[in-house]
Amino acid sequence: MRKIDMYIGIDIGGTNISCGIIDELGQLVFKESIPSGGNRETIAILDDIAGLINELKSKFVGKINAIGIGVPGIIAKDNDYIYYCPNINFVRVHMKEEIEKRTGLLTFVDNDGNLATLAEHEVGVLKGVKNAVLLTLGTGIGGGIIINDEMLRGANGLSSEVGHMVIGKNDYDCNCGKNGCFESFASASALVRYTEKLLDESKVFSSMRNLKKINAKAIVDAAKTGDKLANESYSRFINYLGIGIVNLINILDPDIIALGGGLANAGEFLTKPLKEKVESLLLIDDFPHAEIKLAKLGNDAGILGAAFLAKKMYKA
Amino acid sequence: MRKIDMYIGIDIGGTNISCGIIDELGQLVFKESIPSGGNRETIAILDDIAGLINELKSKFVGKINAIGIGVPGIIAKDNDYIYYCPNINFVRVHMKEEIEKRTGLLTFVDNDGNLATLAEHEVGVLKGVKNAVLLTLGTGIGGGIIINDEMLRGANGLSSEVGHMVIGKNDYDCNCGKNGCFESFASASALVRYTEKLLDESKVFSSMRNLKKINAKAIVDAAKTGDKLANESYSRFINYLGIGIVNLINILDPDIIALGGGLANAGEFLTKPLKEKVESLLLIDDFPHAEIKLAKLGNDAGILGAAFLAKKMYKA
Repeated sequence: MRKIDMYIGIDIGGTNISCGIIDELGQLVFKESIPSGGNRETIAILDDIAGLINELKSKFVGKINAIGIGVPGIIAKDNDYIYYCPNINFVRVHMKEEIEKRTGLLTFVDNDGNLATLAEHEVGVLKGVKNAVLLTLGTGIGGGIIINDEMLRGANGLSSEVGHMVIGKNDYDCNCGKNGCFESFASASALVRYTEKLLDESKVFSSMRNLKKINAKAIVDAAKTGDKLANESYSRFINYLGIGIVNLINILDPDIIALGGGLANAGEFLTKPLKEKVESLLLIDDFPHAEIKLAKLGNDAGILGAAFLAKKMYKA
Repeated sequence: MRKIDMYIGIDIGGTNISCGIIDELGQLVFKESIPSGGNRETIAILDDIAGLINELKSKFVGKINAIGIGVPGIIAKDNDYIYYCPNINFVRVHMKEEIEKRTGLLTFVDNDGNLATLAEHEVGVLKGVKNAVLLTLGTGIGGGIIINDEMLRGANGLSSEVGHMVIGKNDYDCNCGKNGCFESFASASALVRYTEKLLDESKVFSSMRNLKKINAKAIVDAAKTGDKLANESYSRFINYLGIGIVNLINILDPDIIALGGGLANAGEFLTKPLKEKVESLLLIDDFPHAEIKLAKLGNDAGILGAAFLAKKMYKA
């Protein structure tokens, strides 16, 4: 009987650790998730991840070839050592070694933005695209860069930190300590924060501000219905998202810039005004430039990318 | 007798058209230049360039294999069609075709920033460097990007326009129409313009402002002697140059960022405060990051890069 080849992909997030299995054809055949408990001791989190893998290992005996893990943090060049991780207690952790020790399975680790980009490049909106950028608009702005069909790695493994590109002067500093970072203007959190600021400044609405926690989806929905305050905030978001995207076009000149993360659910309500903004900021009006598209894989991009990493590295 | 292989490199600037010849070993064996007269009719400028080449052709009979030409403008992807050129009358010109028709020699055309980068990568400070950025600090900020030992070309041939990356809010708009472009803060022209603004605002010096045309070198020299106004302007320049460089580090994570153009003549007076600024803005303090170095080839970078382009393409 022919051996069935499977690869586990694990996407570590601040809230959940998601896990999936792909088969040889890259189809997602299994999916589950557990809470991250990201502020616990590192060892407890590692044990949880290994437990999840070992469970799958005994469920699919002899079929799992390798593990891929996506981490929302900074990973040293050899893609083993997790240098820094803002939302989960993985600081200076040899993730590859720790998981291999606990599971006996070959393990590969990468930044979650790179892996979402890899997934979109393998089976999503970036399939067959030679030069591309994926931006995930969430708490921050993450993503990855593809140049000549390969993930941009950089000299030290710390490229594609586009969220921390300074694009203007903002009324608050970014978590990284700088002022004016792209993600402090054009992430979901930035949209919420600026809307809250407008509400605070508004005589009519300032009292409403604390009634309910505002989220990005509620702001987008309100903007869609024509709400003036929501539209003011959303326009500012589109403006800065456009500035950041045109910066990337001027530097990288990709074929496609794809947008993922929760805010990409706004669909055409996002892409239509954004395309207009981008057109208005281009260096040369009538020169060919990157298409702006929505990412395809949604929340699965993380686990798919991690599993594709495992498959790619196992075959290499 | 063995044939001697030579390549002509031509660097078209707003003021001069410079020309050089390299031999098979990449040594510059001949150099001359003529005024550009860049606002004349396109055909007159093309005839001048072809005249220069034909003169060299009869001086080095049978030795010239190919021509490389560097143009300070936007060139369409096939590196033939000059799309737009801000300082010289080359708009929608098929440069390759026009020069080949006039000289009978194989001709290759590229953007001057890319070619200066190619030269530094072949024989200058970027030799042997896998991932690098060259910034030329002049009237604007030009340059080129090397990724995995190859020039970054982009999808449409319009990458590496780093000078038009928006990095803040400026008190005047960039020539490109946008506000806040890197080159509107951190080019030689920007340094001059801001210094003039400070002089205009100064009660003591506003009358001096028009006595003499101020240039970047004079400002750097004044800053070196401790002049307060010059230092204020120079500090602002260093600050924004640092912001732009850290943006490029966050996006590309190169091994080296090299600085060329007239301002690079400031040497350590440029690199020392700049390195400090860059260190202070890094995402992760103690993570390896790009070294900042001075370019090596000075004004010859343009003709050398053009000649290397000819050599490379002729051999391909």
